[in-house]
This record gives sequence, C-alpha cells and structure tokens, in this order.
Amino acid sequence: MNERYDNIKVIGFDADDTLWVNEPFFRESERIFCEIMKPYSTTENSNSQLFKTEVQNMPLYGYGAKAFILSLIETAVRISNGRIKADEIQQIIDLGKTQLNRPVVLIDGALNVLEKLQGQYRLVLATKGDLLDQERKLEKSGLAPFFHHIEIMSDKQTENYRKLIKHLDIKPHEFVMIGNSVKSDILPVLDIGGKAIHIPFEITWEHEQINQKNLGYVFPEVEKLTDILPFFIQGW
Amino acid sequence: MNERYDNIKVIGFDADDTLWVNEPFFRESERIFCEIMKPYSTTENSNSQLFKTEVQNMPLYGYGAKAFILSLIETAVRISNGRIKADEIQQIIDLGKTQLNRPVVLIDGALNVLEKLQGQYRLVLATKGDLLDQERKLEKSGLAPFFHHIEIMSDKQTENYRKLIKHLDIKPHEFVMIGNSVKSDILPVLDIGGKAIHIPFEITWEHEQINQKNLGYVFPEVEKLTDILPFFIQGW
Repeated sequence: MNERYDNIKVIGFDADDTLWVNEPFFRESERIFCEIMKPYSTTENSNSQLFKTEVQNMPLYGYGAKAFILSLIETAVRISNGRIKADEIQQIIDLGKTQLNRPVVLIDGALNVLEKLQGQYRLVLATKGDLLDQERKLEKSGLAPFFHHIEIMSDKQTENYRKLIKHLDIKPHEFVMIGNSVKSDILPVLDIGGKAIHIPFEITWEHEQINQKNLGYVFPEVEKLTDILPFFIQGW
Repeated sequence: MNERYDNIKVIGFDADDTLWVNEPFFRESERIFCEIMKPYSTTENSNSQLFKTEVQNMPLYGYGAKAFILSLIETAVRISNGRIKADEIQQIIDLGKTQLNRPVVLIDGALNVLEKLQGQYRLVLATKGDLLDQERKLEKSGLAPFFHHIEIMSDKQTENYRKLIKHLDIKPHEFVMIGNSVKSDILPVLDIGGKAIHIPFEITWEHEQINQKNLGYVFPEVEKLTDILPFFIQGW
C-alpha cells in the first residue's frame, strides 16, 4: 500500500464527500421531504419515487442542488396524485434553500493534506454539480487558495477527464484523482490511463453506486484522507 | 467607427442573444406562465412578481433555466395565495422542460463571423447561466470547434473577467468582448482595461437593463454581428 507515485504532476481532488460533507445534507433534505409527503405516501415510496425522478431528469437537469429541488417538487406532484397543496410545495422550496445555505463542513484532515501536498504538486479541484453552488461552497470552505485550477464539470465521465488533462497540459499517467465515488472519480480516470485513489465515504448516493466486483481494475483504497499522504511524500 | 483593433489577441463572445437566440424563449415561457396564472393574477402582476422573485433568488440560485423554473414555481405559490393546484405546478415544470429542450437558433451572421475571425485571433466563448444547459446549447449550435476556450461563468462581473484574462495569459488591452448586454459584456470588461463592442439585441431582460446615460465610458455599438468584422479585418 505504500507504493509511491513517482511521476505524478497533478493531484485532482473531488470535493463533495471527499474534501467536504455533502451527501448527509441531501439525506437530511430527503428525510424532511418524506415527512412532508407523509399524508400521501410511505417513506419508502417517497424515497424510491424521488430517485426515479432524479434519474429521469438527469440528462436534462444534470447534477446539483437546483436539479434536486426541481425533482423533489415533481415527485411531490406525482406521488400525491395531484393532491399536494401549495403550502407544501413552498415547504419543499424552503427545504432546498436551506440546503443551499448550509455551512461547509470539512472532512477530517482536508486542510492538513492540502497543506502538505501544496508546493510539491499542482493541486486541482474537480467537482460536478451546480456551478454557483460549488463556487459558493469552495469560497466558504476556505480551500480555494490551495488549488492551481478549479474545474466544475457538468459530469465526470471519461470525456470530461480527457478534456481536463488536455487543459492541464499533462500526460494521463502524470495525473492522480482522489475521490469517494468509484463511478465518478476512479473508473473514468483509470480508463484514460490516469491513476486514482479511492476513499469511501460513509454514505454513497444510489446513483453513484456500482457493483465493485469484476471492475477490471485494481486501485488503492484508503480509509481516510490523510492516508493518501504516504503515496506522495517519502517517509510519511 | 472603422477604427481597427490592432493589439487584440483574444476575442470573447457572449453566447445568449449574441451568437444564439435566448431571451425570446424566456419571454415565451413567461407568456405561458401568465396564462397558467390567469385564474389568480393579472398578466402585469404575474410578470412583475416573477421578476421580483428572480431578483431575490439571484444570489442563491444564480442565472439560467433551472433558477428560472424554481422562481416560476415560487411565484405561482405566492401570487395565488396558496391556491395554485398541483396540476398547474406540473404545467410550470413542463414549461421549463420544454424550454430546456428547445433547438438552438443561431443569430444571423454568427457562422460567417466566426469563420472569418478564426485562425487570425484566439476566440473565446464567455457565457453565464446553467453549466449543463449552456454546454448543451453549445453542442447543438455546432459552434464549439471555433473556440480556443469556453468559459461558463456563474456571473459576469469585473472579477470574473479578471480571472478569465489571467487564465488566458494575456493583458487586458489584448482582449475584446462582443456582447448584447452593456451590464454584463461591456462595462466590466472596460473596467479592467479591456475593449468591448456592443451589439444590442431586440429584447433585453429587465435585470440586464441599465441607464446608458452617464456610464463614463465610450464604446462602439454596432447593429448586427457582421458589423464587427471591420474592427478586426483590414479592408473589410
């Protein structure tokens, strides 16, 4: 596990649930949504119908908080069979606004890791979601000064990483991506010849979940953010 | 008016209502929204209340189609005094989806102008709004291959242009911005020492409107997109 990454020039960091907490806030909003929907639907049905709406809307709305709020409202209309009341719609809108206004909570070790690696490597933040929301979270996080480049992507597929690496003017094997999502942070980077280290987070959104058996790739997985340091700093 | 721009290295183009049609589609959606709201509100009140909501939500939601749809729904709840029905909320959601799925209509001369300038200048697309929506419009437009760099910004203020020019590794006086909004495309660029050419579009969103008297700047204004060519191509 202490294999060092000798030819690396750029380290890419995912943000949501890698550098700061994200998924638990969505889960909290979903919990409140299910409460609002109680007169019309079981918690289980509200959750599964919401997920169905989100997946259907993904090509049109993309990722992020505004897409999520729109999908909450659409789900509420559908699963209430048109009985949802205007004040309940307003509660859902307010729920979304509360989520957008949440403070940013850093993942343990984030500051330490970025401080240690800064100067030795070019650090890049590569995140997907809402442009303004991600910019605001970055601002609130205080982490912006650590990054040479910040890329807010509409999606994290092979092609998106190919563009990023081209933009950074490096070879794929000079890039390593650090993130919590095997689907978004690890596999597409390995696909184009880059490296990646996986740090599982306590919760993974259903849409990011994949069967990790037979992926066809072997990649390091570490428990916590500071565990990546031995890959980059000799004698760590 | 035929002054040439000798030291320019990069030409920045706004997209919405500069290279392709945008505002008329928002107006069409607003017209349908006012129809839906007819049982609860006059057209005038629906429009002015919508604008109020959009301005209030701007710091949280930013620009673009998803922010617009969320503001439509919030306005509907408020101006109906909570009487709006679930199926009317669904009509508003559908209205937003229709808008996101519209084909891209190029502004007259867009292709011609980009073809003429390509190769002689680095061309940059600098647009604000929804990340995924703008990427999709660019894809549909077929204009992407003309651009050296594409910047989708959460806002178009002085600071955003300062970052863009730094990223392009040029001096402000080597940059000229072409756009339809004096507020977003012209003034912030002039503020940092860049150049700008204004091409008014037939409609300007109320939020982009400014009093053009006493701006403190003089800048060229042309009638149509092809009128910018004499600024860049000798003997045009």
